[in-house]
Amino acid sequence: MFTCTGYAASGAEASLSPFTFERRDLGPTDVEIEIVYCGVCHSDLHQARNEWQNTLYPCVPGHEIVGRVTRVGGEVADLKIGDLAGVGCMVNSCRECASCSEGLEQYCEPGFTATYNGPEPQTGGHTFGGYSSHIVVDRHFVLRIPENLDLAGVAPLLCAGITTFSPLRHWKVGPGQKVGIVGLGGLGGLGHMGVKLAHAMGASVVLFTTSQGKEADAKRLGAYEVVISKDADAMAAQGESFDFILDTVAAEHDINAYLALLKRDGTLVQVGAPEKPLPVQVFSVIWRRRNFAGSLIGGIAETQEMLDFCGQHGITADIEMITIDQIETAYSRMLKSDVKYRFVIDMASLANAA
Amino acid sequence: MFTCTGYAASGAEASLSPFTFERRDLGPTDVEIEIVYCGVCHSDLHQARNEWQNTLYPCVPGHEIVGRVTRVGGEVADLKIGDLAGVGCMVNSCRECASCSEGLEQYCEPGFTATYNGPEPQTGGHTFGGYSSHIVVDRHFVLRIPENLDLAGVAPLLCAGITTFSPLRHWKVGPGQKVGIVGLGGLGGLGHMGVKLAHAMGASVVLFTTSQGKEADAKRLGAYEVVISKDADAMAAQGESFDFILDTVAAEHDINAYLALLKRDGTLVQVGAPEKPLPVQVFSVIWRRRNFAGSLIGGIAETQEMLDFCGQHGITADIEMITIDQIETAYSRMLKSDVKYRFVIDMASLANAA
Repeated sequence: MFTCTGYAASGAEASLSPFTFERRDLGPTDVEIEIVYCGVCHSDLHQARNEWQNTLYPCVPGHEIVGRVTRVGGEVADLKIGDLAGVGCMVNSCRECASCSEGLEQYCEPGFTATYNGPEPQTGGHTFGGYSSHIVVDRHFVLRIPENLDLAGVAPLLCAGITTFSPLRHWKVGPGQKVGIVGLGGLGGLGHMGVKLAHAMGASVVLFTTSQGKEADAKRLGAYEVVISKDADAMAAQGESFDFILDTVAAEHDINAYLALLKRDGTLVQVGAPEKPLPVQVFSVIWRRRNFAGSLIGGIAETQEMLDFCGQHGITADIEMITIDQIETAYSRMLKSDVKYRFVIDMASLANAA
Repeated sequence: MFTCTGYAASGAEASLSPFTFERRDLGPTDVEIEIVYCGVCHSDLHQARNEWQNTLYPCVPGHEIVGRVTRVGGEVADLKIGDLAGVGCMVNSCRECASCSEGLEQYCEPGFTATYNGPEPQTGGHTFGGYSSHIVVDRHFVLRIPENLDLAGVAPLLCAGITTFSPLRHWKVGPGQKVGIVGLGGLGGLGHMGVKLAHAMGASVVLFTTSQGKEADAKRLGAYEVVISKDADAMAAQGESFDFILDTVAAEHDINAYLALLKRDGTLVQVGAPEKPLPVQVFSVIWRRRNFAGSLIGGIAETQEMLDFCGQHGITADIEMITIDQIETAYSRMLKSDVKYRFVIDMASLANAA
């Protein structure tokens, strides 16, 4: 065991505050990473405040982790001290089920181990996330980071990036296709990643948003058109023209208005999960054999593929850097979607804050 | 023009009664069929009673038509007088759009011409369906009927058969797969066709039903297991084990209970269209990357493939034969699902009734 510093919530009502804790020693397949930046995901806030009623306290959030390797276990041959490395939403899985065997650890049948708030058999406690100085993770769940990218902007790729990349890849988005992205800044900026990635994959990207004034930014990110979803005429003008729509909105909204814009055999994938069920007009899906599907983050191999893709295309998240002591303010602003498009914590600030 | 006899509804409140009308003369690509049997579809009742608010009166329902060719147009080389022939839900489409070009006339972009209640440019009126002595249909929309099957039992294949065959084929149901069919007798027996076809395709078929007492019949039709959907324990015992579920229930029901039974990447296809939207728990689809889709009848080439498949496997619908003057009683019984599993009208009875 060794001592780390971090920021933790001690309860649902408590603000995050400095926290000193023990991490497990390196096993032979483990990698120790000194965390340089950690992205701030909407889930961090939900979990810190026990909004999913399953939080284990103290809770150290953070699953968009980038840093440098500081130690490796004896069996780790392909990472060395000083290498850039990343960790996303998962730090373990059963490695044996059908999903794990296919590299889809996010759908591990017994359930993957979350980067924070998951069980940690090595310590008998629960996992602590990336709002901390170091993390120890099995090599299988450690990603390589392309050296050419801005490291702070890479952090959100580990969750927001893979969550949008995975469905775009799985449903084979590419050149010649018209792709809709619903929402730009919601859910901690999933939509802005969707626009960048779908555009880089060669699709023609249309952004749907409820608010005026996002056009210039959406076009800068890669959209060729912006549709205000409250404008029924603008929606109708899109006809049945979309091959694929990625819906990043977790608030209640009319899914049928988007299903109706799909071509025959088109698919709408929801990555934001509204609390209440979404009423689906069955005729919407029958009429053009449309598909309504969901997608959860992405597998480890696919996450590596996404990082390599981002390296090739020079893609990172648009971020606003904060220090760790600004985390509560960042949460408040995130709730108002007042961030373009993701907060990233400079973990060097931990030394001053702790 | 030539004179036909049939049964029609003269208005939403009127019972069906004998009706004499003109059919168009044969064009060069047309086929005239003397109708021997016509299946009774749930849509017939909806349309006769104007429940979709678009019925053109007088309304001659019927789109599960089998009979014998009595005349062919000059350009029809591959059907001759005396051949068995069938007509399903469509008698024309644009033949030019992407869907028509791919043989998916049911998704014709300008819209296919329904066998009844559709526009008929040749007469300036609307199409009249199969509750009649003869029909004239373009060769492209005429199906060949395998000679080895019971002809009355073939009639329902033209709608109930293809509506269930098409999604089973499109989503590649086959050996080694576990397939659920929801509903056995509802919607005019779509489920009973689903069980027969999925079983013949080599899948292991589980029937979901709300009612006790269907087990023996479901097993006779091809199911290896019957689950009472109101029994939460029985549902839970299925785990996440289904590759594919075909839902034939048009009544309101909890779709999430079935989505939860799908394996990762599994698909639930709805062919019954409940009036109200179905509330879909988004987490159900996100969690295992599940798909919720719809499907509408099937294309003409696929309908021929289905008929040939049924010929090879000796599959017909289980039917109860009625005379045309029993049609209103049949509708009443169909509303109570009091039929195993589809009514078929013996059109010879028209001579006595008219």
